Parts: sequence; structure tokens; C-alpha cells
Amino acid sequence: MIGRGGRDLGGLPGTLAGLAGELREGAVSPVEATEAALGLIEERDGELNSFITVTPERAMEVARRAEREIRAGRYRGPLHGVPLGLKDLIPTAGVRTTMGSAFFEGHVPGYDAAVVEKLEEAGAVLVGKNNTHEFAYGTTGDRSRFGPVRNPHDTSRISGGSSSGSGAAVAVGLVYGALGTDTGGSIRIPAALCGVVGMKPTFGRVSKRGVFPLAWTLDHVGPLTRTVRDNALLLSALAGHDPEDPYSVRRAPEDFARDLGRGVRGGVVGVPSGFYFDGLDGEVAERVAEAIGALRGLGVRTRPVAVPLLRETLDAQRLVLAAEAYAVHAQRLRSEPERFDEEVRERVAAGEALLAHEYAVAQRTKLASLRVFDRALEGVDVLLAPTVPLPATEIGQREVRIAGREEPVRASLNRFTGPTNLNGLPSLSVPCGRTASGLPVGLQMVGRPFDEATLYRYAHALEQAAGV
Amino acid sequence: MIGRGGRDLGGLPGTLAGLAGELREGAVSPVEATEAALGLIEERDGELNSFITVTPERAMEVARRAEREIRAGRYRGPLHGVPLGLKDLIPTAGVRTTMGSAFFEGHVPGYDAAVVEKLEEAGAVLVGKNNTHEFAYGTTGDRSRFGPVRNPHDTSRISGGSSSGSGAAVAVGLVYGALGTDTGGSIRIPAALCGVVGMKPTFGRVSKRGVFPLAWTLDHVGPLTRTVRDNALLLSALAGHDPEDPYSVRRAPEDFARDLGRGVRGGVVGVPSGFYFDGLDGEVAERVAEAIGALRGLGVRTRPVAVPLLRETLDAQRLVLAAEAYAVHAQRLRSEPERFDEEVRERVAAGEALLAHEYAVAQRTKLASLRVFDRALEGVDVLLAPTVPLPATEIGQREVRIAGREEPVRASLNRFTGPTNLNGLPSLSVPCGRTASGLPVGLQMVGRPFDEATLYRYAHALEQAAGV
Repeated sequence: MIGRGGRDLGGLPGTLAGLAGELREGAVSPVEATEAALGLIEERDGELNSFITVTPERAMEVARRAEREIRAGRYRGPLHGVPLGLKDLIPTAGVRTTMGSAFFEGHVPGYDAAVVEKLEEAGAVLVGKNNTHEFAYGTTGDRSRFGPVRNPHDTSRISGGSSSGSGAAVAVGLVYGALGTDTGGSIRIPAALCGVVGMKPTFGRVSKRGVFPLAWTLDHVGPLTRTVRDNALLLSALAGHDPEDPYSVRRAPEDFARDLGRGVRGGVVGVPSGFYFDGLDGEVAERVAEAIGALRGLGVRTRPVAVPLLRETLDAQRLVLAAEAYAVHAQRLRSEPERFDEEVRERVAAGEALLAHEYAVAQRTKLASLRVFDRALEGVDVLLAPTVPLPATEIGQREVRIAGREEPVRASLNRFTGPTNLNGLPSLSVPCGRTASGLPVGLQMVGRPFDEATLYRYAHALEQAAGV
Repeated sequence: MIGRGGRDLGGLPGTLAGLAGELREGAVSPVEATEAALGLIEERDGELNSFITVTPERAMEVARRAEREIRAGRYRGPLHGVPLGLKDLIPTAGVRTTMGSAFFEGHVPGYDAAVVEKLEEAGAVLVGKNNTHEFAYGTTGDRSRFGPVRNPHDTSRISGGSSSGSGAAVAVGLVYGALGTDTGGSIRIPAALCGVVGMKPTFGRVSKRGVFPLAWTLDHVGPLTRTVRDNALLLSALAGHDPEDPYSVRRAPEDFARDLGRGVRGGVVGVPSGFYFDGLDGEVAERVAEAIGALRGLGVRTRPVAVPLLRETLDAQRLVLAAEAYAVHAQRLRSEPERFDEEVRERVAAGEALLAHEYAVAQRTKLASLRVFDRALEGVDVLLAPTVPLPATEIGQREVRIAGREEPVRASLNRFTGPTNLNGLPSLSVPCGRTASGLPVGLQMVGRPFDEATLYRYAHALEQAAGV
């Protein structure tokens, strides 16, 4: 089950959904589940480095409370008693939150992020804080004050980032799910490279209150899990309007797992021409083509669609990210530049000189991009594309040759994920097999605003299909 | 009636609402009304310069059609057969549209702006295009390729801008109403200085499709009229969702004139402390205080309210305006800088070097400002403030002394209007008396998003009250 489509990486057994059933029925206790998670972290994470901070005492306390509640018949739902991880960019009251940075090495916030409140209300057991690329400002996940995260499928390689620890911890099965953040692909990239399911929900769907910003008009919070159903369960708990987050959108609560079983027969998916299929690693191209073929085998029609303006959308997303990240870090850059990782510092500094009129035009591109996707999604349920153009690279590697062209690793990794950070459309990465050397490949699905349910339905169908 | 609260300026008789009744009943014909308007423009506008282009043939043709339709019982509503003006920033198919600029001196667009379509559907008679500050980039209205607009109350003085011609033409009664645009106060400033009613509706309420931009995230289209009821009638025809304008908001159609008669007894208005009452001309302060007193006399309670962040909001509005205006004009500035008015060129050029991270922060200030106003409007119906801190200055005057402080005229004029361009809240200017030398003073009312109806109700009550 673990490490779908391939080797069992030896982590926690089963799925979040499966565990939830056992917890509800009393077949497993939250204390047992939490002890198992903590034990595995202790045993395995020295190598992976997916956690910065582990909180066994707090976790056991919450687990014991969950045990009492469930025994007393006060079952809260599918996260009750389930061990989860949290990217260390998400503040937790009383628990160190570092942003993967020397600046916050000993920082203990006095408040919880909104999503932490949500998880605690749902009875989840937060076992610790997952490693992150410093300030989430990187796609490789190998630049953190706390060292690089290693890919469980090949520990000489990156997990992808910035939600590097969340991706690796979920892939190996140290937790049943983890939260990440995604500003240019930071949930979907580690999901693809580690072989797990990662959802960047629609902008505004999940509150960002309290979460440390990378670029506030592009930042999203979302779940990484081993299965699609697990992901849907986690998002159902996270979603909801928050009047304290100015970007939060008022939507009715939804059970995203409800329609998973409905199947996809008779559905239509769009396959964009160009862009998403340019400059692709050969094996990635093959796995993605096979996944599309598998969907056809399930009775789905595929249709080529034109999605213009993608290059401009990506450029605009990168400009907005650089400008906002500079604004976030300007004071730190002036006062203590040496405390940044060198690579992150360079990227932050590069945002300073960008011009206001360029940013203004980039924001106009956001609207144009929304219309372009709106048109591309007419008559199709979802758009399909690779999540990243290549499998995981080596830790520390900065240039890569893909399809005969040399390019920077960090830019290649978010080439396909960045556009929907600008326009805010929901985008999910689901595993779609592996390379010959065993490295996972991810398929990206992009949907209409607030139509995460359809993404999950297609991803679930693909996950269930033979051969994927 | 004309030139409320003071001299009759000798223009068209009565009000738009009154004329509408006479047109519907056949007591007046659209042809007569249009001939009267065209005659007055011919006779009076040489001095005022409120029109750049007059279209007598087209107007008479539309008037004759309106006459036939009304006679045949096909009455379209209160704008049917009513002569109106249009700021020359609003494109009209087949009719020269200059933006007040040498660049577009002979420009004849092939399309109508959305609001032109709306007015034509409503049967209005567009008699011509009103003068505007060049590219709408100025608050004085005295820098246009077609010369300065003169204030009908003192022709040595400015009308205010940028919708300078719309304000002057309506004030003197050359038309029953005119459209303007407002990016930092460009409807409300000429309304205040010319003694008419000017409404900047909520951002997104009126489509901007086709309108030449000054700064696209701040631009609004709205009506200038002699009375509040007339304004409400005009906005009722202009409002509505336009899928072709990415900023247009989906709202049900509204009859903004419906509740005017409901009165304001028992209502509560907020009077912000500081900012709006700092650096005020003495007579403006007196007239505004009297208007607030008049509302009290109508049974309205007044409450001091804190509106923090106004200085930051204004600064952010100015930065966003400068950055977007630069983006709009960059190509023209590079290729033919000499075709700009010198002052406008300087302002455009000043937008080039502004930084992206400053713009990004300004957009964050927009959200903060919305929350601040939201809080300030808790428990009050509207906020009251002067529209501008001073009466009309001399044409060409660039510095002014107000309350003992020297400041640039153009910056003083939009000090109080700019904030709601950033946050998009509806804001109206209604006449509230005159200075000893006969210059009009305007009272500004700011309301909740999409609550223009309440602004109109208060402004109507004030208009009806004795002594104002």
C-alpha cells in the first residue's frame, strides 16, 4: 500500500481512511497509532530528515484524550486520533516553528494557525513539524537550516519542495498525512517526487490565517497523503471560510470524499497542447501518457485543448512571488543578511528591483489567465498534465539536462505548477507510476474554481485502475 | 433649481426626473429637449469649454427616434429622450473620442463602451463628448489638448477634474446629466467644485468595458447630475454585471431612486475624526458642519468614528495609480513623449521607477483599508466628510495655502477622495452650500460595498432640507 505502485517503504500500515475506521470501531487506539508513528519517526527519520521538531509528549497527551473521547462515544470524525505532520511554516502555539530558517531557530509562537485549530477540533494528533525549504522559498527542499530532506525512494535525491518534509514523511509512512503550503508548486512538487497525493486547493478555500507568508497572493495551504481518499478527508476538515483571512472565500462545507466512488465513465478530460508537454523527461512523458491511457480504459474521453498564455502566466507568477517575498523579508535582509541561506538570500534580494508597473501587469495577467483556463475547461471535467517535467534530482544538484536542454533544477521543477498559483485554480498531483530506477512520477490535474471534488474523483479512479 | 442653493446659471430647466415625466406624457418631445440642449451648448459652451465634440446630427436622429417610440407607446424609461453628455474618455463608435489628448485628437473608435450601450438601450440622447483632463490624469481639469474647462460659477476658476467638462456642463445645465470616470476623485471633485451631484459607485458595479484606463484597479465610471434623484435614475441604468469586464461584479439590478422618499429620521451617520477634517479651508469646514447640522435637524444621530489607516490608504492609492498609469502609457512615453501635456508627461514618467514590492504592499493595504472601513461603518449608515478641502482654485494655479499650509493644488484636491478608489467603497459628493464668494462646497458620503441606495437616501434628504 505504502509507496503506491511500487516498494513498500516500511512505514505505518494502511491508509488514513482505513485507520479511521479502526479507530472509530475501537479496533485500534489513538495511543497505539501515535506510538507507532513516533516509533517510526525515531527509527527512520534520522536518514530522511523530514521532521524538524517532534512533539511526543504533546502528541501522546492528545492521543490519550482522543482515546478517552472515542471510548466515551464522542467520536469527532475521520481525523480523530490520526497522527499527522505539519510543515514548519505553520505556527503552533507553544511548539517551536522555525520556517526552516536560522532567524526562527528557537521561535515558539503564541498562537495556532487557523488550520491547526481546524485539525485540533477534528481530533487529529499532530506529532511534529515537517522540514521545509528555508522560508518555503525553493522547489528542491535541500536548503533548510535543518539540512536537506532525503527522498525515501533514493536518499541521495531531493524530496522536492518546499514542503519537503511533508512529502517525504507521508511517502515513507511516518504519518498518515501532512499539511504543506504551495506558492509555486510546493505541495505538488514533493508529492510528485515522493510518490504521494498533494492537493493545492482553490485560492481562498483553506484559511491561511497565521501561516508564515512566502507570497501572500499566491500562497495556499493543503494536504499531502498517500491516497486520494485520505487527501479528500483531510481537505474536508481544512476547508471553510475564515473572516480573519482576507483571502478566504465563503463556501458551504463539503465532503470531498463523498463522490469518489461515482467513477469517471463517460467523463471528458482536456489534454493541453504544448507548454505542459514541452521539455519533458522521456520516462515522465511515458508515465503520463500511460495514465491518460488508463483513464481512457475507464471510459473517459480525452480531448486536446488549447491553453494559451501559459508562459506569460508562469512569468507573472514568478514576478509576483519575487516581489512579495522581498516585501516579506526586506527588513531581515537589511538587518541580518548573513542569517539567510545563501541561495535563498539571493532569491529574496532579486525581488527588490522589480518594478511596480510590471507587477501591476502581472496581476492583470492573472485575470487573463483565469479566462483562458475557464475557456479551456469548457466541456471538459479536468485538465491533465505532468506535475513536474523530471524525476527527483540529486541533493545539491542545480542544473539538469531535460530533453536535450540544460536548465536550472529549481526553475524546471515549478514550470508546470506555477500557473495555477497565479490564477488560483485547484490542482492536484497524483502518482502515476515510476521510472525504471524506481523514482515516482506525478500526474497533475487542474479543475474549475472550487471543484476539488472532481479532481479527487478522477485521481481516485486513476489510483484504483490497474497498472498505475 | 439649477446651481442648487444659489444662482440660476441659465441652463436647461428642471431636472432629469421632471423632464422624464414630461417626455413620457408627451408634454415635451425628445426633439424639443435635444434642440434646447444643443442650442445652449452652442450659446454658452464657447466660454466654458465643457464639450470637445458635439454631435448635433446624431443627437437629433436619436431624439427623433425617441419621439416616434414614445408616441407609439414604446416608452423605455426615465432616460428615454433625455440629452446627456459623456466624458471623452468613454469610446463611442463612429464619434471622435480624444481622451483630451493630442495622441487621440482625431481618433474615431469602432466600438462603444459598455455604458454607452446601456445608455443607448435606455433611449438616452448623447449630445457630445465632455472635455477631460488629458488622459484623466489630473484633478484640476485645466490640462487638456482642448484647453481648460471653466467653472460656471466663476470662469476664472477650474471646474475640477478629471471629469471637468461633465461637471461644468451639468452645473450650468447644458445637459441633464453626464458620465464621468473616477480613479482618485475625478467624478466627485468636479461635482464638488461645480455644485452638482457626483457618484463613484462601488468598484465593479458599473462595467468599464471599453473605457480608456487611467489605472485599471482604481477606475470607476459613474454619473454627474444636478439632483440626487437624477443621479439615482442614471446609475440604475448604468449598473449591471458585464461578463466581458473582469472587474464587473454580479449583482441584481436595482432601482436606486426607489427609497429616496423613505427619509433618514432615526438614522445614524459616522463622522470620522482627523484626516478628513485636517487642513480644511474655513468656509468648507463651516458648510460641512452646517450640512451635518441639517441632517441632525432631520432626526439623524451623528457619531464620531475612528477610521485608521487613511493616510496609508491614500498613499497606496497614489502609488497604484502611478504604476498602472505608467503601464498604460509606457509605449507612448517612449515613442512620442512630446505629444503629452508637459505636466501629464511628468506624472506618467514618475510611475516608471516605482517598485513592485511597494505596489504589492499597497494592494495589501487595500484589504486592510476595507476592513477598517467595514469596522467604521458598523452601526452607522454612512460616513460623512468634505469631498475636497477647498473651493475651486484659479485656472493654472498650482500651489495653494489651506489652513496656513502651502500644498500642491492637485494633491489637495484628491486628499479626501482617493482612499475609496483603493478600497472601492461607494462615495458620493452632494452640494452643501457655497462660500461667501459663491463657490460651491461638496459633502462626501461613503457607504458600504454596493449600498449606493443609502448614500442616495441621505443625499436626497440633505438636498431637500432647508438651508442647504
